[in-house]
Amino acid sequence: MSIIVHHLNNSRSQRVLWLLEELGVDYEIRHYQRDAVTNLAPPELKAVHPLGKSPLLEIDGRVIEESGAIVQVLCERYGNGKWLPRQGSDDALRHLELMHFAEGSAMTPILLQLYTSRLGEAAAPLQPRIAEQLAAHFGYMEQILRPSGHFVGDDWTGADVMLSFPAEIAVMQGQAGSLPKLSAFVAAVHARPAWQRAREKGGAYFNM
Amino acid sequence: MSIIVHHLNNSRSQRVLWLLEELGVDYEIRHYQRDAVTNLAPPELKAVHPLGKSPLLEIDGRVIEESGAIVQVLCERYGNGKWLPRQGSDDALRHLELMHFAEGSAMTPILLQLYTSRLGEAAAPLQPRIAEQLAAHFGYMEQILRPSGHFVGDDWTGADVMLSFPAEIAVMQGQAGSLPKLSAFVAAVHARPAWQRAREKGGAYFNM
Repeated sequence: MSIIVHHLNNSRSQRVLWLLEELGVDYEIRHYQRDAVTNLAPPELKAVHPLGKSPLLEIDGRVIEESGAIVQVLCERYGNGKWLPRQGSDDALRHLELMHFAEGSAMTPILLQLYTSRLGEAAAPLQPRIAEQLAAHFGYMEQILRPSGHFVGDDWTGADVMLSFPAEIAVMQGQAGSLPKLSAFVAAVHARPAWQRAREKGGAYFNM
Repeated sequence: MSIIVHHLNNSRSQRVLWLLEELGVDYEIRHYQRDAVTNLAPPELKAVHPLGKSPLLEIDGRVIEESGAIVQVLCERYGNGKWLPRQGSDDALRHLELMHFAEGSAMTPILLQLYTSRLGEAAAPLQPRIAEQLAAHFGYMEQILRPSGHFVGDDWTGADVMLSFPAEIAVMQGQAGSLPKLSAFVAAVHARPAWQRAREKGGAYFNM
């Protein structure tokens, strides 16, 4: 079996490395660097997938796109019954919702903020709406974190892996004070030996 | 069994009505209207879900969030073996990817365009990047449409339902000429009697 992660520095693909380390699966990393000026992914990624995005996971030559699909597949194939709730349970439905929420909802205001920040002052009219949406989504994540410190049930699942990225962004934006549960969640993720191994292998990842 | 769609006019929830009509399931629509000035969802939706978004599907009192989760659940529970590829097949993996692609990737440049359009000329520096991303995502959708006119396999699946929304936007933006397969896909969706029933029940839906 051959597993390759097409990995972009400072990107959402860092969490795929974390999950692979948790699962104890052998894999290879192909590193891609963002353009120093534009911060965009390099054109080499387009040779792997027409959209030129990361992460992309290659299992025995089949390239899998979309973080949500990659995390789901890894948990199903290599989780040995862990990392996913029991099929048919209400937790499984909750897991499905949050797997879609992570990219389909939580990332939207984050990307809006990232893009419009390049406009500087000119984006001021949009800032209240974006700030309100960021607060709503981060606040929702804070609210739904369970007493166990996980997003679904009482153990780690793929949803925690998916939501670790927007959670890290909330903390990086200095919101740890108003989001204590989310901040503790990020600290717990970063305390995992698997996360630390992935961090070492992944290369540049913000200031974490 | 009680099924309620919390439905916002001119929104992604129109496709949930389409799917329910295809599946022949009884359901009730609760209508919500966008604010005439801000175009935002009304605060009443927050009583159903803290993020105040649509669509939300309520089955026997359990509110399900995220279009991708809603469509997946409806296909699983009421599809009678249709609307989803056979479990474990490569088409099932492709379906999983595209269920995430629809909101996790295709909608991102669409939402960026929608938001930054409110800035008028001030957003000009972002326009080339947004236009390039729209072209890339719509072009990818055009490229992967299969000879059968579907996104996965040779029959309708949940992925077609999910992708119908960004496909409609591509056509509404006047790109039908350069995206003939995507344009034919939208025409085929709109020719479905189930889509037409849903269109009638849903209320305002752009100029379609």
